[in-house]
Amino acid sequence: MNHPAPPATVGRAALPAALLAALQDVFGDRLSITDAMRAQHGRDESAFEPQWPDAVVFAERTDEVARTLALCAQYQVPVIPFGVGSSLEGHVLAVRGGISIDLSRMNRILSIDAKDLVATVEPGVTRKQLNEALRDTGLFFPIDPGADASLGGMCATRASGTNAVRYGTMRENVLGLQVALADGRMIRTGTRARKSSAGYDLTRLFVGSEGTLGVITEVTVRLHPLPEAVSAARCTFPGMVDAVNAVIQTIQLGVPIARVEFVDALAARSLNQYAHLTLKEAPQLFFEFHGSEASVAEQAALVGQIAAEHHGEQFEWATHPEDRSRLWNARHNAYFAMLQLKPGSRAITTDVCVPISQLAECIAGTEADLATSPLPCPIVGHVGDGNFHVAILVDPTRPEEFEEAERLNHLIVRRALSLGGTCTGEHGVGLHKMGFMREEHGEDALDVMRAIKLALDPANLMNPGKMFTLERETS
Amino acid sequence: MNHPAPPATVGRAALPAALLAALQDVFGDRLSITDAMRAQHGRDESAFEPQWPDAVVFAERTDEVARTLALCAQYQVPVIPFGVGSSLEGHVLAVRGGISIDLSRMNRILSIDAKDLVATVEPGVTRKQLNEALRDTGLFFPIDPGADASLGGMCATRASGTNAVRYGTMRENVLGLQVALADGRMIRTGTRARKSSAGYDLTRLFVGSEGTLGVITEVTVRLHPLPEAVSAARCTFPGMVDAVNAVIQTIQLGVPIARVEFVDALAARSLNQYAHLTLKEAPQLFFEFHGSEASVAEQAALVGQIAAEHHGEQFEWATHPEDRSRLWNARHNAYFAMLQLKPGSRAITTDVCVPISQLAECIAGTEADLATSPLPCPIVGHVGDGNFHVAILVDPTRPEEFEEAERLNHLIVRRALSLGGTCTGEHGVGLHKMGFMREEHGEDALDVMRAIKLALDPANLMNPGKMFTLERETS
Repeated sequence: MNHPAPPATVGRAALPAALLAALQDVFGDRLSITDAMRAQHGRDESAFEPQWPDAVVFAERTDEVARTLALCAQYQVPVIPFGVGSSLEGHVLAVRGGISIDLSRMNRILSIDAKDLVATVEPGVTRKQLNEALRDTGLFFPIDPGADASLGGMCATRASGTNAVRYGTMRENVLGLQVALADGRMIRTGTRARKSSAGYDLTRLFVGSEGTLGVITEVTVRLHPLPEAVSAARCTFPGMVDAVNAVIQTIQLGVPIARVEFVDALAARSLNQYAHLTLKEAPQLFFEFHGSEASVAEQAALVGQIAAEHHGEQFEWATHPEDRSRLWNARHNAYFAMLQLKPGSRAITTDVCVPISQLAECIAGTEADLATSPLPCPIVGHVGDGNFHVAILVDPTRPEEFEEAERLNHLIVRRALSLGGTCTGEHGVGLHKMGFMREEHGEDALDVMRAIKLALDPANLMNPGKMFTLERETS
Repeated sequence: MNHPAPPATVGRAALPAALLAALQDVFGDRLSITDAMRAQHGRDESAFEPQWPDAVVFAERTDEVARTLALCAQYQVPVIPFGVGSSLEGHVLAVRGGISIDLSRMNRILSIDAKDLVATVEPGVTRKQLNEALRDTGLFFPIDPGADASLGGMCATRASGTNAVRYGTMRENVLGLQVALADGRMIRTGTRARKSSAGYDLTRLFVGSEGTLGVITEVTVRLHPLPEAVSAARCTFPGMVDAVNAVIQTIQLGVPIARVEFVDALAARSLNQYAHLTLKEAPQLFFEFHGSEASVAEQAALVGQIAAEHHGEQFEWATHPEDRSRLWNARHNAYFAMLQLKPGSRAITTDVCVPISQLAECIAGTEADLATSPLPCPIVGHVGDGNFHVAILVDPTRPEEFEEAERLNHLIVRRALSLGGTCTGEHGVGLHKMGFMREEHGEDALDVMRAIKLALDPANLMNPGKMFTLERETS
């Protein structure tokens, strides 16, 4: 494949023996240097070829994380935090070797405080696990990136998903963190209070830092009351522009919609094939409404009216839980359904996000680009936030398809940037978006990021080779 | 007064003549070294004695800000950004002399984009000015810290206020910034898209940085649709605990209340005296509800029921704009009304914020402390966020009253920290809260802040002497 990644390290690199011995003392049989374990920690859900770490440690306690970082600092060996490996951007690939620190066994829910609507968890706790634990509290954790990602990983990539239009992203929902710094010191950021003006916002600095500034060892998140009532709807539109305009009007009117998802005709076809549905193969929106009974009814009526004004048709409404599940399951299965449009394929997924006023133009231009390509490219999107994904389906055995996918990806990102948007709304930079950071932020803003990186990780050992180059680009 | 501030500089310090000449070239008669102008820029709304800058420049354009910073870097002279001077914590005092860069003339509204619900403004635009400009758009900017502060200043202190319980703080409502760095380079942070995962969150780093990392020269904020309906209510409670418990239950049930403000008996008395009202002089809550007609009615009914369950009485409801204004004007005048409890006094205002589960305990403990003091100390609070203010009224001619105020302040902050809260919910650190940063964050987290500060401002020229000490405290 022709991705902008360094060559894979498949042989066992030479870790300092003294480091290995010291890690063995800490982790015993929770240190692994087997090929199987290294291979498992050298890949994610992206289409990048694996790049193995030299060793894997399974941390169970915060002090083990701190000790690992202190040892890696001493021996100048890279550290890559690993949650469940659901990144789509190559975040966990060990591009410079080093130690993969697997946090999936740090999966204790440390506290749930229903009165304050907060929970504190270890970084390996997944969103489904947390919501399961919240089952009897009347509360839930709304951020849903699709995958059952770990909370630590969701912090690291500033994840969001379908509910963000109403409940915000990880940026808005993390109150505080415990972080192991590059030299092994531990800090806490934030408090359990809902707001603070006390100093630099270190919480927001580590949220989205992709493991490049430290390792998150504890996460305190906001919880939300389960809505008294939930209803859902779906409707199709003659064209994408109608659907997007309906969304824009909904947002402008301040309807507190909980989810609004766009699915294009090809994605709808994939859902039909995958789940034996009979969706009209046309652009469509999936809606979800949260609130009191009266508020949900009112929102649904208003959105129905807006959609109708934009030529929405074939409305399907669902208020009963089973009907809602059936309706939304179709959308939830989209990723796997889309892959089945081309059996054996992998998806290269774009993740641009633009101001919603630019969304129709951005998607229309994208559709024109995709029409020039032989690859199947279904589109789904969190359109209430201006965020959409193109799943570019490539045959992993055909390098020319990766090249074509990258050609499309560049066109899509460049257009989003020219429309005032970002190269990544929720997946993060990792390896795959590094090449766009200069264009998005400018070299001087990247210098600020570099200065922060080097201030906190002077030896560049924390997930090195990700997010941006440490050297200023002069060309 | 006995505040932890360095001695005031009242004589004209020796600015390098070459710097003064260079600034004269840039600013002409917008450079001032008169005592009157320096005095005006050496004070804020805090009770600190003034500390004058050596000179004041009135910037009208971004490039003038950049040039000032480059010159100050060259001559190693401090720079203090100045908005409208409404800080309560000594932020703008020139504790090490230098140049006060007055941004109040950079007050152009650069764009209002109703479709995207964003506006971009220069830093000297005030919140009232912005809302005035939004009048015909159906949108508003909700952050209301009381004072008609500048947007730049509100960014710098991470301001919030009465609406934050529903609409968030400046943290949630700033999409992007333009910032002049310490060396005079300009950067942009963020995009106009609602979310992004592209790199470190520089926007959130500069929001709340109190001028210590750079000078904000442009602010892009989120706007919100004006609610279709608004209603307001007020009711009294037998005791503070009942009022707070009513608030906790309201938040837990997910009622999307727009404002909920606590006023204690003494503050109520001050409002009666100031505005010739007949409020019962008892703990009370002021509410505001935003939404559709039906939603507002539903919220009001539910909150009325909750309040009644907690022994709320003397309900007053207002749906007509004039009645709402009259009801809320009382609360809006609280600061000046409270000062009149002790004519000629100044207020030393605390600003702790705790998890709402701890709020009743925190206020009860605070009330017990205040009962030991001869000073009048009314309490008001943004209780939906767990944030409250004690206005400790001191006679500015009596140093022993400042000492007593500081004694109370320390008790109040220490208790809030011990309950998992923060020393400042919305006013910022400035000079007044520096002594609590170590206790709140720990020395290692402060080291991270110091590392960031020195990475971006190696010569410590950006508003020096504020927020935290650059030297690690070892005692």
